[in-house]
Amino acid sequence: MNDLLLRACRRESVPRAPVWMMRQAGRYLPDYRAIREKVSFLDLCKTPELAAEVSLQPHRILGVDAVIFFSDILIPVEAMGIEVSLTDRGPQIGNPVRSSGDVARLASPDVDRAFPFTGEVLAMLRRELDGRVPLIGFAGAPWTLGAYIVEGAGSKNFAAIKGMAFGDPRCFHSLMDTLARTIGEYLVYQIESGAQVVQLFDTWAGELAPGDYEELALPYTRRIFEVVGDRAPRILYVNGTPALLETMARTGADVLSIDWRIPIDEARRRVGDGIALQGNLDPCLLLGDRDRLRSRTAEILDAAPPRGHILNLGHGILPATPVENARAFIEVAKTYTRA
Amino acid sequence: MNDLLLRACRRESVPRAPVWMMRQAGRYLPDYRAIREKVSFLDLCKTPELAAEVSLQPHRILGVDAVIFFSDILIPVEAMGIEVSLTDRGPQIGNPVRSSGDVARLASPDVDRAFPFTGEVLAMLRRELDGRVPLIGFAGAPWTLGAYIVEGAGSKNFAAIKGMAFGDPRCFHSLMDTLARTIGEYLVYQIESGAQVVQLFDTWAGELAPGDYEELALPYTRRIFEVVGDRAPRILYVNGTPALLETMARTGADVLSIDWRIPIDEARRRVGDGIALQGNLDPCLLLGDRDRLRSRTAEILDAAPPRGHILNLGHGILPATPVENARAFIEVAKTYTRA
Repeated sequence: MNDLLLRACRRESVPRAPVWMMRQAGRYLPDYRAIREKVSFLDLCKTPELAAEVSLQPHRILGVDAVIFFSDILIPVEAMGIEVSLTDRGPQIGNPVRSSGDVARLASPDVDRAFPFTGEVLAMLRRELDGRVPLIGFAGAPWTLGAYIVEGAGSKNFAAIKGMAFGDPRCFHSLMDTLARTIGEYLVYQIESGAQVVQLFDTWAGELAPGDYEELALPYTRRIFEVVGDRAPRILYVNGTPALLETMARTGADVLSIDWRIPIDEARRRVGDGIALQGNLDPCLLLGDRDRLRSRTAEILDAAPPRGHILNLGHGILPATPVENARAFIEVAKTYTRA
Repeated sequence: MNDLLLRACRRESVPRAPVWMMRQAGRYLPDYRAIREKVSFLDLCKTPELAAEVSLQPHRILGVDAVIFFSDILIPVEAMGIEVSLTDRGPQIGNPVRSSGDVARLASPDVDRAFPFTGEVLAMLRRELDGRVPLIGFAGAPWTLGAYIVEGAGSKNFAAIKGMAFGDPRCFHSLMDTLARTIGEYLVYQIESGAQVVQLFDTWAGELAPGDYEELALPYTRRIFEVVGDRAPRILYVNGTPALLETMARTGADVLSIDWRIPIDEARRRVGDGIALQGNLDPCLLLGDRDRLRSRTAEILDAAPPRGHILNLGHGILPATPVENARAFIEVAKTYTRA
């Protein structure tokens, strides 16, 4: 029974920081690639037995302190009527949202019926884990989902979604509102199905000026976290946190998951002791020399608060990562003793 | 005779902030597109008459307070033996640098001979401008150039260059060293040819943790700025400055050009009064409503220091920008009066 993650989320005293990795069920693992050879990414998300298997791999192979169920942030928008295909170049949207008419046509999925595979995989994982480590649910935040479905693909400058936000704010806010409603219900459904912690990925919110984040993203994150309430600890992830930290802390998140662009002790000073922190190693350090990887990981643990810290990467683990390096990262957390 | 830019770089008293836009000679201008229909991007860079014409367009059409010569940051690496092609999807490198052998094979171009078109276009522009507004030279910083030539293309996560930096630091530093030598000489050559200010683009340095920036990028920027010395004011641009500002201020730059992710008054407080600031409007605001654009631009001028500020965007102007919006941005600077 390892509930380190839950205790760290609640900022309770823990013997050591729990550790897991964003995108830990992924292509760097040969066991994952073996399954993906036989099934597409989206079909893998929608086949509970296979999704459960790849979700469990990093726990079995690396001993991470938490399991996150295998899925994709675009699953709920697909149920809203968005045509999603996941390609080697990232997600592609067949019918990008560009007008108020497009927003009005979005479906409001009944979360109890639209994602039966999500409920099933979460239930299977809870049974299978039997309390060994906590189970994490997740979803994309409205700004980040909006970026994909308005841009129609990944983007370098987010010109389409920002153009909408700055040029047709009524349309933009109506889209955010629609997304926030579905995502809030979707996370509650995940918790009712077995998720013990939820992480909201607002990956692209770091593209916003702080004032724009406050106007365009924060209200929808806050609304989702209000809907989740105290059903489960709420983690908020943003890539590009240095200028947004204090604002992120006002979303109602229990944990802020930060990228590597800010030293974690500086982040702690800025947000105070009332909120837990998750992070924050540059995932590219897992591509390099193992001694450097170990010492940089230990530096984060040296700098992190003694309670309320979850060791993680600052972004998803990269496909080119050697498994031995992923293992070394996890082992540092498990063997670390404060100097 | 408008020398506002030079005086702002030196933090002298000015009646108003000078204004120009990164990538102001570009696709948003119909006059630019008309020329690009007849000639490739690289050929345009290398044909002094045409490069001078597109460099002057934004001054003639919009009345910007400075002209930056038309070129590309990859021009000098091409002269080092790197095969560069500029495609719709961004730069592509035919022979990415991946090993110490690749680094050793890089040529050390004789800057007086390798870029005759650069010297010619700068000389033409100085003659043509006849002191009306200052002329800006520029180059890419070693980290950012290294990112392109090691990745082989634009990148989302910079896994190849960081993998080299963290896995084979000797090879990485030898590459940075080689690039810094050429870029330093290249900027001096630009100044001797007519450039009155130089801007070093370290666009991708914001992908680095502050400690990594200090180890991997700062020493080479500092060396280049030492070579330039007091021949001309030195501007340093980074996209993703919130966590790097204080470190950037230690490069020897006279001006820090910052992105939109940090309020400019906060940047001023953090770096003090000893250095000028350039920026920092999100270029996507030029895609939206014109009233919002005007008020957000005025907010920057409200918040900026009364001296030592150059109004600019936080990144290059986007191709989809309406010319009227670019004009509105410039006009705010020219008509602004402090409340």
